[in-house]
Amino acid sequence: MSTIHPATDFRSDTVTWPTPTMVEAMATAELGDDVYGEDPTVNELEALAANLLGKEAGLFVTSGTQGNLIAALTHAQRGDEAILGEDAHTFCWEAGGIAVLGGITTRPLPTDSRGRIAIDQIKSAIRVDNPHLPHSQLILLENSSGGNNGAAIEPDYFAAIGTLAHEHHLKVHLDGARLFNAVTALGVEPTDITAHVDSVSVCLSKGLCAPVGSLLVGSEAFIHQARRHRKLLGGGMRQAGGLAAAGIIALKTMSQRLQSDHDNAQALAQGLATIPGIEIDPAVVETNMVFFDLAEGIAISPEALIKALKLEYGLYIGGYGDRRLRAVTHYWIKPPQVERLIAAIGTILRRH
Amino acid sequence: MSTIHPATDFRSDTVTWPTPTMVEAMATAELGDDVYGEDPTVNELEALAANLLGKEAGLFVTSGTQGNLIAALTHAQRGDEAILGEDAHTFCWEAGGIAVLGGITTRPLPTDSRGRIAIDQIKSAIRVDNPHLPHSQLILLENSSGGNNGAAIEPDYFAAIGTLAHEHHLKVHLDGARLFNAVTALGVEPTDITAHVDSVSVCLSKGLCAPVGSLLVGSEAFIHQARRHRKLLGGGMRQAGGLAAAGIIALKTMSQRLQSDHDNAQALAQGLATIPGIEIDPAVVETNMVFFDLAEGIAISPEALIKALKLEYGLYIGGYGDRRLRAVTHYWIKPPQVERLIAAIGTILRRH
Amino acid sequence: MSTIHPATDFRSDTVTWPTPTMVEAMATAELGDDVYGEDPTVNELEALAANLLGKEAGLFVTSGTQGNLIAALTHAQRGDEAILGEDAHTFCWEAGGIAVLGGITTRPLPTDSRGRIAIDQIKSAIRVDNPHLPHSQLILLENSSGGNNGAAIEPDYFAAIGTLAHEHHLKVHLDGARLFNAVTALGVEPTDITAHVDSVSVCLSKGLCAPVGSLLVGSEAFIHQARRHRKLLGGGMRQAGGLAAAGIIALKTMSQRLQSDHDNAQALAQGLATIPGIEIDPAVVETNMVFFDLAEGIAISPEALIKALKLEYGLYIGGYGDRRLRAVTHYWIKPPQVERLIAAIGTILRRH
Amino acid sequence: MSTIHPATDFRSDTVTWPTPTMVEAMATAELGDDVYGEDPTVNELEALAANLLGKEAGLFVTSGTQGNLIAALTHAQRGDEAILGEDAHTFCWEAGGIAVLGGITTRPLPTDSRGRIAIDQIKSAIRVDNPHLPHSQLILLENSSGGNNGAAIEPDYFAAIGTLAHEHHLKVHLDGARLFNAVTALGVEPTDITAHVDSVSVCLSKGLCAPVGSLLVGSEAFIHQARRHRKLLGGGMRQAGGLAAAGIIALKTMSQRLQSDHDNAQALAQGLATIPGIEIDPAVVETNMVFFDLAEGIAISPEALIKALKLEYGLYIGGYGDRRLRAVTHYWIKPPQVERLIAAIGTILRRH
Repeated sequence: MSTIHPATDFRSDTVTWPTPTMVEAMATAELGDDVYGEDPTVNELEALAANLLGKEAGLFVTSGTQGNLIAALTHAQRGDEAILGEDAHTFCWEAGGIAVLGGITTRPLPTDSRGRIAIDQIKSAIRVDNPHLPHSQLILLENSSGGNNGAAIEPDYFAAIGTLAHEHHLKVHLDGARLFNAVTALGVEPTDITAHVDSVSVCLSKGLCAPVGSLLVGSEAFIHQARRHRKLLGGGMRQAGGLAAAGIIALKTMSQRLQSDHDNAQALAQGLATIPGIEIDPAVVETNMVFFDLAEGIAISPEALIKALKLEYGLYIGGYGDRRLRAVTHYWIKPPQVERLIAAIGTILRRH
Repeated sequence: MSTIHPATDFRSDTVTWPTPTMVEAMATAELGDDVYGEDPTVNELEALAANLLGKEAGLFVTSGTQGNLIAALTHAQRGDEAILGEDAHTFCWEAGGIAVLGGITTRPLPTDSRGRIAIDQIKSAIRVDNPHLPHSQLILLENSSGGNNGAAIEPDYFAAIGTLAHEHHLKVHLDGARLFNAVTALGVEPTDITAHVDSVSVCLSKGLCAPVGSLLVGSEAFIHQARRHRKLLGGGMRQAGGLAAAGIIALKTMSQRLQSDHDNAQALAQGLATIPGIEIDPAVVETNMVFFDLAEGIAISPEALIKALKLEYGLYIGGYGDRRLRAVTHYWIKPPQVERLIAAIGTILRRH
Repeated sequence: MSTIHPATDFRSDTVTWPTPTMVEAMATAELGDDVYGEDPTVNELEALAANLLGKEAGLFVTSGTQGNLIAALTHAQRGDEAILGEDAHTFCWEAGGIAVLGGITTRPLPTDSRGRIAIDQIKSAIRVDNPHLPHSQLILLENSSGGNNGAAIEPDYFAAIGTLAHEHHLKVHLDGARLFNAVTALGVEPTDITAHVDSVSVCLSKGLCAPVGSLLVGSEAFIHQARRHRKLLGGGMRQAGGLAAAGIIALKTMSQRLQSDHDNAQALAQGLATIPGIEIDPAVVETNMVFFDLAEGIAISPEALIKALKLEYGLYIGGYGDRRLRAVTHYWIKPPQVERLIAAIGTILRRH
Repeated sequence: MSTIHPATDFRSDTVTWPTPTMVEAMATAELGDDVYGEDPTVNELEALAANLLGKEAGLFVTSGTQGNLIAALTHAQRGDEAILGEDAHTFCWEAGGIAVLGGITTRPLPTDSRGRIAIDQIKSAIRVDNPHLPHSQLILLENSSGGNNGAAIEPDYFAAIGTLAHEHHLKVHLDGARLFNAVTALGVEPTDITAHVDSVSVCLSKGLCAPVGSLLVGSEAFIHQARRHRKLLGGGMRQAGGLAAAGIIALKTMSQRLQSDHDNAQALAQGLATIPGIEIDPAVVETNMVFFDLAEGIAISPEALIKALKLEYGLYIGGYGDRRLRAVTHYWIKPPQVERLIAAIGTILRRH
């Protein structure tokens, strides 16, 4: 299999390679044994993330999934229940780890088209103390909402849920895999959102281009326990300073440039909207994700379109079942690539 | 607290006392140590249940919850996923045990007004093999459907799901806590339904009046493993023959008389429907459960109605949040009690 | 299979049938729905047990295994560690439930010939706070010690461990399946021992002859949580008053007569010691358990001896691997049975 | 805190930094999204490890702990039991994850001074099918044995256990965190050992100097499931090719140079043996670990010695409780460092 260059790859922003600046920083990073807490670059990254997100402490973890799992293991115990959106990444795409490994039962609730659970529904889902029922302990939120066109949810929503949760002694964790996309789209500070929740995970890979890793932040006591859970999962890394060096650039620099990706996504959406046979409303594209559908009568399957793009144009997009497709913009995707993708899809569809 | 006699108690059919015949049988049952497999009465009960439900073997367990939990632990492994209705007893009222103790993640799906998940939705919920996703392994069904007015679901539905499940190598467990109510209402044999599923649990308490216990049935291999899981839960009982003696009467005799309870429930529903301020459609009462609502404008809360019934009439019904109430008929409730309850509710409501 | 009468059955004290007084009490017990907390006989039993064992509250559970499992689930959380004897029932004979269902890792420590772990070894086993290590949370003790000839451990031992545990913020649970045997042998009050531990489970079956059930006692807060865990395991029983009525007699009356069983066990041990080919030191028989070995040169296997006793004499004893056998005395075993067993074993061995 | 250079650090071989060759390779590695299976460097590393260890397939994981945990999760199910040495890393230093997350109960057995469990004891520990007992499923071994001076266990031992295990349908996993140290010391091929077990994990960090990561190898079917479990733990990494590039050098080159570390360890042991007040038998040093004790009468504590070495000489060794200390050799430790450490310890002890 030949390597797919990220400049041709719209399947996800997870495909991003580190930037040349990152590669340089990784090669020259100060190292130490992070399991002993002695990797200075990791320590710097953890402090930076905590500061940026307004929390006391941070923990470098392998992936967004691991950050979310550790947060759940730390906030909730065996027999507790976590409330979350029925299309949340934590419910749909993390292999059920919260329940499977944590003994935390999950209560998925319906979401609106932007991924928000109605506050009233969360309120109704909080349990009374009754032996027939699990103990409500945790609310898991997500921003931007990957299962809903990457919608960027406003701070007010988190404020309302934070208030509700804390009144009922529940904890709130924010899966902020793409939090910087959300805050960029909203024009707010990360802390405008994170102030309302107890813990946050953010991904350094995806749009921020670091090769590996996520940050989990919260109170000192939370992170102390989270560090125990990271070890339990075998998530402790030794000389992780190289990865952390890329992460520092991700947080400091790459988090500031995401508007370009959103502009490209919007341009892509608008271009696709002009193609007969494509169904898309550009207004729903709030960040870097462009979901679109092939119209009912179109005589080409999503799989065939994906294959044609790959074989004829060397371009990659993703399929999401039925007639749905996804293209995601990121650092390596520049406007000419967007133009090329629009043109290619138009050409292929006109043939059918 | 003084004891509540079941002849006054409509809160649930779980409140039933054993019949005099049962009490006699319990006192004279042959005993043995069932953990050694030597209690002859337990052995007889297990064989009887297996035969009645068309399976190879049976296991006497403490409760319906334990029967369902053991079935899930036996059919599915850590990391598997169970598909079930969002209002199923197994999802709503069993403390999340399947996830909490079994490491089996649960996937609740919407149900119709009779508790049925659409077959297509089950089909869509079965996972492909992908590390991001849990492994679909088990479908949990319920009949009658306690969360839906005790609706009695037809054999066809189980046949369709059984076929779908087995095509995809999933197992099906039926929570038949009130299976005999369902088959009575439908006028079918238990095996018309159970033939389509891999395991069934039925409760001996509830409408069948035994004081304690449920039966889990399935293949020999399944029950062999289930017996291990019963021990794991501490569900092994020693001289359980007394309880089993009541259970034998429950299965042989009490399962044949449930039409009376359904007739009483229907009479209750029709009586309630004549009371201004009560909202109920008697047509939805298929078995022994009568759910009804206080109309919007009524100047009495459900709690106040429950209290007035108790203090003024010595009658007990259950509250289900908002304006919803429930009255359940069973062996100890005879037509005069039904009349009394209708009259009492009418009188109290006329005061408001 | 024909039923084995307990008057011929030395395999265990679990084989005991309820006494006629119990059977009568069971048939006339006041009942209610214990899942609603309304069974007056269960409530009486729980209060009685709590009082007798010097704790605030009690909970009726299905079995000793379930009592121990609930205690562990309640005291310790996922990721905690329980320290226990390497021959403790909780480690050896409960299917690993503490780890399997509770996510509590177990740390078995060596015991002396009476089942005691050295205090220093417990002290060394308590962990420092280090992410590589689980969190020490619970010590599980047992009295009498079933894996060690039923030795009756003195109050001092529990006092010392209680002090150590509480200094280090650990909890102590006592598996008192046969606690009344121990206190009878020691001539102390139950509270002389239970005062030093946080929770206790005692079995109503075994030597106390109730057909089913155990009691778990502890603080109000502990039992509140334990009740949740009982539901989680499906251990809630409905009209359990009949079983509880037997339990009340077990605690009040049967717990006072165990010296007879110990006398019978001692007589059995001394009788066996006179038989050539039997190895036993009667001094190690402190309660109702008589373990003995066939000497090396004896030309009969334990299995053959067990079979001969059964087929020729209708007597039952247990085999424990290698050349080890066990005979347990209980309510149904009277001195003539003991004489008969000694004589039978003597006769069979003389043939070889 | 200033960074500790590995050339001064004898605490563990986990402190090793990547070599300059590795750093170069990491910066120029071909990348891809490994969660999609598209990182060519990771793929190359996995194939290389599988080949080197004689298995069908490999999986790159974050740490040795994660490799062992995934192996256990994959070989064994909820309710199974794993047999392992009482001083095995998997039992002592991995936070109990096998039990805590996997619901696999652990059965620690005594080991000899080189970390070997007696074969007969393993045989006795394999369970019969009985509901009171967990199901024996897995044996966890370790080579070299970190808890026993890094002893290098001979192939015969693994052959004998493999035969026993497979006769009883158990699986065997080898924690080969330092397998290359063992095979170097023994002068055998890795496959001489790995042929007898079902899966192996080896660490790329530690003596092999890669910054992060371990390899798990086994059959195709095993690795397919292991990949699912890696995702479950959040162990999936995106552009892990940089780390994998270091890993390739670790396996190809660094695994061949470990005799130097062993020579240095032996020199260190012999040097220490000449110092009055140090207790060590150089004969037990088989690989790169030098454990030694301060003699009873010595008027300096291990902590004080560690501190003096750090403050006066900038040298780091580890403390292991009581009077025990540890110094480990690795790539960055050259003979002059060994000489310096011996001299420093001698000087400090002479002062006391």
